[in-house]
Amino acid sequence: MRIAFLGLGIMGSRMAANLSLAGHELTVWNRTAKTADEFAGEHPGVSVAATPREAAADVDVVFTMVVDGPQVRELLLGDAGAAAGARARADAEPGTVFVDCSTIGPEQARAIAAELRSEHNFDFLDAPVTGSAPRAQSGELVFMVGGEPETLERVRPALEAMGSLIVHAGEVGQGQTVKLINNGVAAINTVVVAQALLAATSQGADLDVLLEVMRSGSGGSRMVELKGSPMVTHNYTPVLFKLDHLLKDVRLCIEAVDASGGHFALAELAQDVLIQASDMGLGDEDFAALAAPLERDYGVRIGERPAGSDR
Amino acid sequence: MRIAFLGLGIMGSRMAANLSLAGHELTVWNRTAKTADEFAGEHPGVSVAATPREAAADVDVVFTMVVDGPQVRELLLGDAGAAAGARARADAEPGTVFVDCSTIGPEQARAIAAELRSEHNFDFLDAPVTGSAPRAQSGELVFMVGGEPETLERVRPALEAMGSLIVHAGEVGQGQTVKLINNGVAAINTVVVAQALLAATSQGADLDVLLEVMRSGSGGSRMVELKGSPMVTHNYTPVLFKLDHLLKDVRLCIEAVDASGGHFALAELAQDVLIQASDMGLGDEDFAALAAPLERDYGVRIGERPAGSDR
Repeated sequence: MRIAFLGLGIMGSRMAANLSLAGHELTVWNRTAKTADEFAGEHPGVSVAATPREAAADVDVVFTMVVDGPQVRELLLGDAGAAAGARARADAEPGTVFVDCSTIGPEQARAIAAELRSEHNFDFLDAPVTGSAPRAQSGELVFMVGGEPETLERVRPALEAMGSLIVHAGEVGQGQTVKLINNGVAAINTVVVAQALLAATSQGADLDVLLEVMRSGSGGSRMVELKGSPMVTHNYTPVLFKLDHLLKDVRLCIEAVDASGGHFALAELAQDVLIQASDMGLGDEDFAALAAPLERDYGVRIGERPAGSDR
Repeated sequence: MRIAFLGLGIMGSRMAANLSLAGHELTVWNRTAKTADEFAGEHPGVSVAATPREAAADVDVVFTMVVDGPQVRELLLGDAGAAAGARARADAEPGTVFVDCSTIGPEQARAIAAELRSEHNFDFLDAPVTGSAPRAQSGELVFMVGGEPETLERVRPALEAMGSLIVHAGEVGQGQTVKLINNGVAAINTVVVAQALLAATSQGADLDVLLEVMRSGSGGSRMVELKGSPMVTHNYTPVLFKLDHLLKDVRLCIEAVDASGGHFALAELAQDVLIQASDMGLGDEDFAALAAPLERDYGVRIGERPAGSDR
């Protein structure tokens, strides 16, 4: 397929690389042009465009992977945006499909989809991912896709070059909904791990034993596996996912739930903890650092037996 | 080994069966004698004792698997208790070892251990398990063991007949501590799953897709795997673990944390939800039924799109 990829950050660069490796004809654009030039230098056959509009010329799919909804809107619908350069639907062939992999919330996804449809008659999919840089690199991301099933089938070969699981979540916006609830759950499950380690520390328990038992038992979670040991060692690097990025996702999760008239009390609690951690200057650390404000509040440091403990 | 097993409930009967199958010389006792007689009828070579005291005569290990600390105390230290019939330590051979697999909390385990030591010079291990009836049956329980490492080594062959992972958690009581924190985490992770499904329902999301994504992503947990589908179908049978039993464990968890001067706020929240569910008459259901009071509070039934929803 002929593909434009807009946004070569930590995730986007690895995703685009897998598209190129799979043999797709790739044009890239990045806000900082040097990054795009370097990417093309490392991946023979990849073209660099000066604008999203130029990147979208005569491609089958435009992917976006950026930070938030306003950025997606600008890249697609701005003056030099991809929609202005893409191929309109014609009798002979389908138009360009727009696939946004950013995490922007369901409302913004629906608004952008509506505008692409009404002004240009373009098809749009929201296709946010779970999995961080290592999985982006190995092509093992999970894509949650909102939009028409037929549109998904048209771009599936491209998604399969980047992901190991592609799930159709419903109409436009539902990919975002599923992604945000998943990340809200990840955030609260991480708070649970921190509180459990603190409760165990107060009782003089062996934290490595606790983590081993939880991993193999009913207390097991992906966050026990990924964040338990970093919390015990207070090692918040390498940064697989920045605390401030998780906070952004949890905020979007709560906004979306509120907009539907629903509730997600534990996500709000996780948001409070993340805000406290960010206020402590930990926003650029791995989100395992959310343990820090809990340690402060509990007056206990994970893994350090309290002074005067008799066991 | 020569082994006495006291308490042939859902878990105990399966554990004792595996001891017999592994070739250990087994004597059983159960409060309801008929259960013990039936067990012996099904397992050739197993003897039935009239009292814990009689069961403990000349055995290497006494296992207990009952409901709570007072029961364990009575079976071991009561008038017809096992301690009165067991083999005292002598120059030529070690004394009987007492291994309690019940969930009774660290304080009661330490008190019973101290009494067995001071009055009889017996060794005691607290060895609670995770895993429900199917894992008890297949011999794949996880044992968390508190006590002297040398004592654990003496009984390890018996534990290995019943479990796939035997972890030394520290001194007496620490097996209980680890078990209770694990179960506290399981309880709160289950509340998280229920709240996530409710938030997703409010947004008209596809719950099967959400569960699939969470299982393979950062929101994954053992409780997502085990309790997600039962909550969507509102099917709280088969009962792998009764809601009231989980409530008991969470109460013990919070008691133990409080006694150490620590905190576990999310376990307290899970306790509140479990109490509400029990008050609704769901105590004998599988603990996935803790979703019911949350559905009531949120005014949403998991999987049913709210009336008037536009998506």
